[in-house]
Order: sequence, then C-alpha cells, then structure tokens
Amino acid sequence: MTSIDLNADLGEGFGRWRLTDDERLLSVVTSANVACGFHAGDAPTMRRVCALAAARGVRIGAQVSYRDLAGFGRRAMDVPPAELTAEVAYQIGALEVFARAAGTRVAYVKPHGALYNRVVRDEEQARAVVDGVVLADPTLPVLGLPGSRLLELAAKAGLPAVEEAFADRAYTDEGTLVPRGEEGALVTDPGAVLERSVGLARGGEVVALSGRRIGMRARSLCLHGDTPGAVDLARRVRDALEASGVRVEAFA
Amino acid sequence: MTSIDLNADLGEGFGRWRLTDDERLLSVVTSANVACGFHAGDAPTMRRVCALAAARGVRIGAQVSYRDLAGFGRRAMDVPPAELTAEVAYQIGALEVFARAAGTRVAYVKPHGALYNRVVRDEEQARAVVDGVVLADPTLPVLGLPGSRLLELAAKAGLPAVEEAFADRAYTDEGTLVPRGEEGALVTDPGAVLERSVGLARGGEVVALSGRRIGMRARSLCLHGDTPGAVDLARRVRDALEASGVRVEAFA
Amino acid sequence: MTSIDLNADLGEGFGRWRLTDDERLLSVVTSANVACGFHAGDAPTMRRVCALAAARGVRIGAQVSYRDLAGFGRRAMDVPPAELTAEVAYQIGALEVFARAAGTRVAYVKPHGALYNRVVRDEEQARAVVDGVVLADPTLPVLGLPGSRLLELAAKAGLPAVEEAFADRAYTDEGTLVPRGEEGALVTDPGAVLERSVGLARGGEVVALSGRRIGMRARSLCLHGDTPGAVDLARRVRDALEASGVRVEAFA
Amino acid sequence: MTSIDLNADLGEGFGRWRLTDDERLLSVVTSANVACGFHAGDAPTMRRVCALAAARGVRIGAQVSYRDLAGFGRRAMDVPPAELTAEVAYQIGALEVFARAAGTRVAYVKPHGALYNRVVRDEEQARAVVDGVVLADPTLPVLGLPGSRLLELAAKAGLPAVEEAFADRAYTDEGTLVPRGEEGALVTDPGAVLERSVGLARGGEVVALSGRRIGMRARSLCLHGDTPGAVDLARRVRDALEASGVRVEAFA
Repeated sequence: MTSIDLNADLGEGFGRWRLTDDERLLSVVTSANVACGFHAGDAPTMRRVCALAAARGVRIGAQVSYRDLAGFGRRAMDVPPAELTAEVAYQIGALEVFARAAGTRVAYVKPHGALYNRVVRDEEQARAVVDGVVLADPTLPVLGLPGSRLLELAAKAGLPAVEEAFADRAYTDEGTLVPRGEEGALVTDPGAVLERSVGLARGGEVVALSGRRIGMRARSLCLHGDTPGAVDLARRVRDALEASGVRVEAFA
Repeated sequence: MTSIDLNADLGEGFGRWRLTDDERLLSVVTSANVACGFHAGDAPTMRRVCALAAARGVRIGAQVSYRDLAGFGRRAMDVPPAELTAEVAYQIGALEVFARAAGTRVAYVKPHGALYNRVVRDEEQARAVVDGVVLADPTLPVLGLPGSRLLELAAKAGLPAVEEAFADRAYTDEGTLVPRGEEGALVTDPGAVLERSVGLARGGEVVALSGRRIGMRARSLCLHGDTPGAVDLARRVRDALEASGVRVEAFA
Repeated sequence: MTSIDLNADLGEGFGRWRLTDDERLLSVVTSANVACGFHAGDAPTMRRVCALAAARGVRIGAQVSYRDLAGFGRRAMDVPPAELTAEVAYQIGALEVFARAAGTRVAYVKPHGALYNRVVRDEEQARAVVDGVVLADPTLPVLGLPGSRLLELAAKAGLPAVEEAFADRAYTDEGTLVPRGEEGALVTDPGAVLERSVGLARGGEVVALSGRRIGMRARSLCLHGDTPGAVDLARRVRDALEASGVRVEAFA
Repeated sequence: MTSIDLNADLGEGFGRWRLTDDERLLSVVTSANVACGFHAGDAPTMRRVCALAAARGVRIGAQVSYRDLAGFGRRAMDVPPAELTAEVAYQIGALEVFARAAGTRVAYVKPHGALYNRVVRDEEQARAVVDGVVLADPTLPVLGLPGSRLLELAAKAGLPAVEEAFADRAYTDEGTLVPRGEEGALVTDPGAVLERSVGLARGGEVVALSGRRIGMRARSLCLHGDTPGAVDLARRVRDALEASGVRVEAFA
C-alpha cells in the first residue's frame, strides 16, 4: 500500500498576529513545519503549536528562515555561510526545547521562503544550511525540492534527504517548479489539485505545464494553510488520498 | 579547602558589535553566562563562545533576558508570565544547541539585567522564569541573589539554587545590594575588591556599607568583563583567591 | 451644534500580517492613529495608510509605542526618559515622511498600549513622551485620558491636550477607567455602546459602573477596529451620532 | 581654489554598543552619514550625533540601509522595490526629526553597506532607493559611486548626484573599485592614502591597481572611523589636504 506524508507551515504568527489556522491544520497534516522566530513564530506560539502537534501525533519540523520578520523570510539574503549555519542551528535548538517539553523531538528541518528557494541552486548557502542541521543534530532529515543542492548536500552529509512535491504548483518538463510570476504557475482549480495529489502519491507522476506526464518521486506533499480556503482544500486533499487507498502518514 | 565559582557575562556583542573580551575572560572564570540573543548574543557569537568555553573547560550558563536589544535587557518589562516562560525556554534551547555542538551542555541559567533585578522580588516573574527553566530542563541550576524570590521558587521547583555575591557592590546590613544610584553603592577601589573577594570566599562574610560585618554565603562570585580594566581586575581577583588558598572551580 | 472626533488605531499589521481593516475604518473615523513601527506598522503599511487617510480627508496621528513587536506594545517597560523621548520623536518623524508624501502632516500624537496606560500616572514617562513630541514638533496636539499626567504635562508644555473617552469601557465614579480585568470593565452590548457614545458626545456624560451619572468631557471618542464586528460597531456608532445631530469631525 | 567634502559614517552603535568615535570624527569630516536605525543607530544616538554635528557645522546625511541589525546591513537583500522605497523614506524621516531638533535638516542621503554596493548595478533597487528619497524630499542630494545606477537614476529624477571616491581602495583601469576580496584591494599604507587623497582632491585622478593614472572626479572623499587608527588617519588626510591648498568643505 502506498503512503505519503503531508506537511504544512504552522505557527506563522508573531505576538499579536496570527496567520495559520494551526488547530485545523493539525487535523490534516502528518508533519508540521513550525516557524522558529526568524520569519515568524514567537516563543509562546512555538510552545503551543508543539504541544498541540504532540498531542495529535503530528511530527514537528523546524521551519528555519533568514532573520527577517519585516519581510516574512521572503527576502533572499546574502548571509555569510558561517552566520547562516549558526542561525539555522539556533532556530532548531529553540524549537527543540518546546518539542521536548511536549514529549517529542524535532524530527526534521525544512527551510522557509526565500531560503528554501535559494538553496535549490546556491551551493554555498545549501552547504551552510546542512552544516547548521548537522551542528544541531547529525541525524535530522531535511525536507526540500527534488534535485535541489540542499538535498544533494544533505545526503552527502549523511542526513536523510526527503523530497517533497506541490500539487498546486505547475512543473516544467524537467521537473522544476514554474516560477510564480509566470503564466500558469499556480494550479488554482481544486479538482485539479486533488487529482494531482493522488497522482503524485499513487503514481509518482504529475502532468507538467506542457501537458507531458513526468515522473515526480516525493515522500511528502506540501499543503498550505494561511487562508480558510487553503485549509479546506488541504482537508479535501487528505480525504481524496485516503479514498484512493493512499495511507497518509509521516515519512519513514 | 574552600572553593568558589567565578562567573561573568560573556558573548555580549551582537553582529558587528563586541562588548566583552570573551577570550581573556575565559582564562579567569569557571562559569560563563552566555548571552542568548535577546539582549545580546547573535548566533555566531554564541557558537564561538561555547566552543571556546568548552575547550577551556569553563562551564556554560544561559544568560536569559527580556527581549530588548535596544535597551540591552536593562529595561524592566511587564511580560505576561506565560510569554516570559516561553521566552526563557527559547533562549536556553538556542544556547543548548551550541553547547552540545561543543561537546558539553548548558549547565545553569542566570537572568540578565532588568530581569535579574525584577525576580529578586517579583513573584510572578520569578515563577515564570523558573517555569521556563523547568520547561527546558528540570535539573538545571539557577544562579541568583541570596534571598531572592527566584532562588526560593527555584528550590521549591526542585532546581538547584546557587547563590552569588558581588565583591564590587556594597551591601546593606540585611545583606541586600545597595541600589546603584546611592552613595557608596559601588566598590571601586581594586584593593578593596580583592579583599572582599577573599573574605566572601573564605569567610562567607563581607563588610556592609555601615561598616558592620555580615554573613554572606555564596557559591559563586560575579565578575565583570565589559572593559579592559574589568578583565584585569577579574584576573587579579582570581589570583588573590588562589594565593589565599581558595580553590577556584565551578560550583558543584 | 455639537461635534465629536472619532479616532481608531490603524495600520497595525507588520510585514505579512494584517490586523486592522484600514480601508473600512477610514470610512468611519475622522482621526487615524497610525502605528509607527515599534509595536506594529512596517514602512510600506504606513505609507499606504497615510495615502488612504489623506485621500479621504482623515487626519493622521502618530500612534507611538514602546519598542516591542513581540508584545505588540502591551508590555510596560522602564525605558529611561532620554531614550523614551528619542524613541517617541523617531516614530513621529518616520510617520511624518509618509504624511507629507500624501500631501498632509502628522496632526497629533497618541501613545499606544502599555505606554498609554503608563503615562496616565507615571510622571517621568509622561514627561519623556511630551519631550519627544516637543522635539518633533512643539505644536502637535496630544491625545490621551482626561486627568492623565500626559495631558497635564502636555498642556504645561504648550501642546494642545485632547481628551478622549471610550464608549465601550466602564468608568468609576471618579471618571477613571475600570481596569480591564475587573467585573464589568467592558461594555459589550452594542446598544449600550451606541447610547453611551451619544451621551458622551451630546451631554458630556456617561453612566459609571456604580450607576451614577458622571460628567466626562471628551473631544474624541476612541473606537476599535481589530475585528470585523468592531468595525461594524464603529460604523453604527458614527451613524447613531449623526442621527442624533452630532457632527462627526476632527477635533479643532 | 580646489575644495573637497569629507564624509564618514557616524552613529553606528546601537543601544549599549558603540562603534564609531563620533566626537573625534566630527572634528574631521564635513558631512556625517548618520545611521538611521536599520543597520545601526538607535534613536538616542541619532539625536546625540545630530546635535553634535549641528553644533560643529557638520552636515547631516541619512545613511540608509537594509533592515538588518544582526548583519550590520552587510547582507544584500532582495527587498521588493515598493518595500525598499518605503523603508528608505522611513529612515530619512526618522533622522529628519533629530536634524530639525538640532536646528538643521537632513542634507543628503547615502546608502550603507550591502545596499550601497547593490545599487551600483541593480537598476530595480537603485530606482527604489531614488523613489524613497524623492518620497521624503525631492531636493535631497544622493551620495554614491561614480558611474553607479544609483547616481544615474538620481540625476534623472532631478536629485543632485554627488560622486565620492575612496583614497584607501584600489581602482581598476575603468574606475571601478577592486572588490574587497582581491589582492591589493585595500590601500593600507598611510602615506599612500594621504597622497591619493590629495591627488583625488587636487587633480581629480588616482593611480589604478595596474599602475595607470586614471581620472576620478569626486566631490567627496569617504573616510572611515570605526577604529582609533582610522580616525587618526582621517585627521591626517584632512591636514594633508589643507596643507596642499585644498579647501575642505561640504559639497555645494
């Protein structure tokens, strides 16, 4: 029987501000990418989300970011590698305290926003992120884009490299994401998202923007939860996967 | 043979800015209160200081603070207890990652600046700090002022409560610190500081501002290192202690 | 004919986060308390809100705060007076640039959150805030609580002191606000809020928590806009005021 | 008689931390690039430096930066143009309040660190900075590198574009700066710095790294003041200029 992990960003508020519907998302996903304070995620929110996730058996991951509250971590930054390494480790350590307090552990690391995109190709920063993960815990899996420098270097460093796919993003024939600005980059039709989710999970393939069917191996699907509609759709994705015989569970 | 711990604040720079002469201080103290990013202490500095401390066998403590870079943690803040608890745990967790990477562990917690002063009497915040320590690690010693609410509540919570004294601060007859603004609050004569250090370590007593000799049990002496002169004096304190037969070593 | 100013907090998002429904609020209020970056209010939001306010003829006020993004300015802080003065001026100056760019000027200053509450009684901080306003512009009106140290010192410094009232807060017989934690502190019945608004604007009086009718002179009513329901109620307050013959306009 | 402006970065501390020797620098330079809070420069420091500069007749410029305290503004950031424009204007406005309080005005704008380097070639960010300056004050001069996109777009927007040169940096034959990492990029011999300063000011030329003499028109020389030695050298540069008959004065 086929299985797939579902991950989403959680705890992306800060102080007075809320963004993600953490409670509802935790009834959908199997892996929670918890913001660690650099782009979002104040300490009380981190504590609360970890407690909720642990209570539901949802795995906790450190969603590490550039230090950029004003830009929500969406501003690519030329952080010198040694600084980036230390900043990544700092965030993982901060989250670990709340994961442990909730009776569990940080189970993986996923870069956020501009850092996520940067380490697809930027070898220096990808290596810096991997070094930061190793510094924190040399057994932590890293979640990222198939074919990214991040996953390549993570694997070389002995970290489990976990590939993820997006059911709501268009792919090129080469299996890379169509950049957001471009025509057709986002898949907005809910039915198409459901269908693509099942195709990715069951068949390991997806229809590229060109119409060509391409292989796309992914152990996790990334869902979104920053709007009410997004959480509804995430719920339907999970239901559709289970209805099609896919077991939804955290990656091994 | 009598022994005493020497502690000082380290790693109190941030980004481009440096304050404490960490390398020299590490040749003097037995316990390093490392800033954790809230009043000072960026991630690369935390990493560097932890590595240096571990290499020299100096114990690493989490110097936790209000979130206040602009005020260097010297602005007392009415942080709601649940938020303060989470913020304290966050800082301990962040430092722990660098302590572990250096092959050791965070060995104790000491509040910084305005928080240190606040938890002498403020029961709510003292409890919040203790809760944060327990959240992070229910075996961590807490360093503070003798008679403070912080140490009292730490002990009640099962945390080792470690009393510290200041050789360069005047005491009242009741054994509390003379507030900084008041006449004679600071002991500026180096000879007097040396003498008081030895008296505190060997005899467990100190001459109060009134001239009266009072008992002052302390397992640690707090030294300062934010000026070149301060580090020189710290060095002389250690030498004087050792010359008088006191063993300088981390508290048990 | 009686007139009253209506003020509310606007622009209280930060980066990715939104809180206040600025566009709808601008169709209700005559004075917009715009967050200046210390508790909320990133630069692009400040620019946008100033442009919208100017386009609608709504007056722009600087909502100055403690430097406290994580606590949304709700954590009282012991900021040394000279620092507080400079921080207040800094915020006013930053907002002024966007007010001018929109063809208008910052027209008044109102402290936010914990600072607002602190300067009701704390003479040192009240004076520091007044000094900051004078530093920025010695003709700027200051909005605050009747009887507060802030307004008293503002008036002494030659700044117009503008008193405001709250239709949704209970008052003591002495005309001070019943603290939030206490029974009956908040007036939650919409009908009562409307009635009190009209009573405050037309009669200069309000029913205290004791049931006694007390005088309450206020040139401005403070409305809230951080929930959809709050904006609806604000709209109804304005409608009720106008229906009762009160002219809703910015304070003179 | 030839004249030249001397500019340096001032006020680059933050809270407890100091970096630049502002008082001594103010006896050397004619234009002070004052940090505005985004990479350095807390409000009390800004106020103090403006007062000192005004008292000495030194012109005040806004040293605008990316929002990056941890990286001291040295981390290039992909800030969306509209955000960068607003952030630049915010900083200018904040400084303006202290310049006015000191009886003067912000007289020019100079980007700091990574932003300075980025707008040499990045048209989008250069335009965003220019838009921010225009938003704040469409008459403000902009200080930058000769041939930079920043100065080109500033001039197009009607802002006075002021070229600056560096006596302690090597130039290519094309008149661009040799990147810091490269061999010979920094001119460390004090005698050479003095000679180059005079050559730049009097002859409008400098010897490139290749040994070739190239033209370099600059109305301002940039000096450094973040070490005691740097301030001494700055003082000697000024003395050498004056001894050679160059009038040291703020650019027209």
